[in-house]
Amino acid sequence: VSGTGWRALAVVGVGLLGASVALAARRRRVAGRIVGVDRDPEALDSARRLGCLDEAATDLGAAACGDLVVVCVPVDRVAAVVRAVAAGCRAGAVLTDVGSTKAAIVREVGALPGGVAFVGSHPLAGSEKQGPDHADGDLFAGRLVVVTPGPDTDERAARRVDDFWRALGARVERMTPEAHDEAVALTSHLPHVVASALAGSLPPELAGLTATGFRDTTRVAAGGPELWAAILRSNRDAVLAALGRFGDRLERFRRALADDDAAALLALLAEGKTARDDLDLDAGPLDTV
Amino acid sequence: VSGTGWRALAVVGVGLLGASVALAARRRRVAGRIVGVDRDPEALDSARRLGCLDEAATDLGAAACGDLVVVCVPVDRVAAVVRAVAAGCRAGAVLTDVGSTKAAIVREVGALPGGVAFVGSHPLAGSEKQGPDHADGDLFAGRLVVVTPGPDTDERAARRVDDFWRALGARVERMTPEAHDEAVALTSHLPHVVASALAGSLPPELAGLTATGFRDTTRVAAGGPELWAAILRSNRDAVLAALGRFGDRLERFRRALADDDAAALLALLAEGKTARDDLDLDAGPLDTV
Repeated sequence: VSGTGWRALAVVGVGLLGASVALAARRRRVAGRIVGVDRDPEALDSARRLGCLDEAATDLGAAACGDLVVVCVPVDRVAAVVRAVAAGCRAGAVLTDVGSTKAAIVREVGALPGGVAFVGSHPLAGSEKQGPDHADGDLFAGRLVVVTPGPDTDERAARRVDDFWRALGARVERMTPEAHDEAVALTSHLPHVVASALAGSLPPELAGLTATGFRDTTRVAAGGPELWAAILRSNRDAVLAALGRFGDRLERFRRALADDDAAALLALLAEGKTARDDLDLDAGPLDTV
Repeated sequence: VSGTGWRALAVVGVGLLGASVALAARRRRVAGRIVGVDRDPEALDSARRLGCLDEAATDLGAAACGDLVVVCVPVDRVAAVVRAVAAGCRAGAVLTDVGSTKAAIVREVGALPGGVAFVGSHPLAGSEKQGPDHADGDLFAGRLVVVTPGPDTDERAARRVDDFWRALGARVERMTPEAHDEAVALTSHLPHVVASALAGSLPPELAGLTATGFRDTTRVAAGGPELWAAILRSNRDAVLAALGRFGDRLERFRRALADDDAAALLALLAEGKTARDDLDLDAGPLDTV
């Protein structure tokens, strides 16, 4: 048993994120034992080959042995998996997840059996790639994980979840589920929709005329459509508000160009540059720790 | 004098692109002599320190010694610089440029003194960074350069421009100035506007909640506002058409989400993913040569 005191870590869903959690936990000796659970035997095999699992199971019940359970399934299945696993857990067990939205999950999880706690997490790390073959034991190093306890969440459990992510090398910030969802609608969900719409606007015959600019701007559009449809639907109101905000700004560009208004165009471009340049100033600790 | 037969290469404007042209030409021994011209003495000094210039001058007239002159100034100044330099060139001289739009430039350059030819070029390579300190002698290696002769362009001169870019390691494709501008409106100018509008939509207090997705999607927004205002204005109609095309697709996303239409949302995301994945299939020769 390691210093952070987890006897058994169960990871449910060993895709890119789940396998990265298991790999990071193994390398950093965060848990005495690591159990991987996935309904897909091929994914389990791939994760096992990474050397990060002590036990692999296709039966969800196997996850109940964990005193920490990290649920790494698509957002529209998180709550059901949490409730199913929690029913079999011992008192004192803590469950968390890695879903990109939090309010709907926290609401749907609701009350759990006595002594079992759920604390929502969202690591701001990932990839447009999928599956355990793309797992990365350093995926969380220096990254931000937002932990979202609700008013009824046991504070001791929330602190243990904070400590778990810190043990994987991440920085932790606390937010309410609702504030989290509004923020990531703008920082993550809107960029995904924009990148996808941009990629989808390209006439295929022009693919050869794209350069690194188009490729970078659309990179995230390669993410899994099912995963992203579920994320967007579970954060519908905030994403629609973000689309409205972006649409207003795009319309200002369109009007400046239609009116050949050089000053307005320059001002819009300068504001975009300032906002983008400021991200790199902030990026120091995030990218180098 | 090298195999491609340029006695003297003059580069006007030694920013990121101009200095990269000079650096690539020096390394690949494409010209007997390389002359750099820039009205900014500091940029000239930086370029000179790269070791790629035999001569540096702030006087535009110095460029007329080139039998090849590559004009690397912002698109709204290319035509005037080409006409000014061409007036002093010997018969047989060939001028080209690296501007991101072509139709307006070709139209404004118009007829030149007898024996002096202008052939438009656009290397699909660059960076959001500016200035000779970011020059890269391999910037054109494996990249596409679009060469855009008009109906009155001397074919021998156009072929020599093709050969020049190939000597720097690039692939060359011929297009009309108009077809080029319509294509890059979608592959380059639209992504710039979208990235800038997205960066400008971010509330500054959420900067810390961005991850690599937001950063990649907005990377090009860090480009120079003056450069980009000039590019967008010189390709106004095609950029407005591209914005319309993108806006239609974004509206389909908005409607699918507002209607909670899972099938429509999934279809849009899948189309975006296919388009993006196809770019990487095409990327082999571009990224590896």
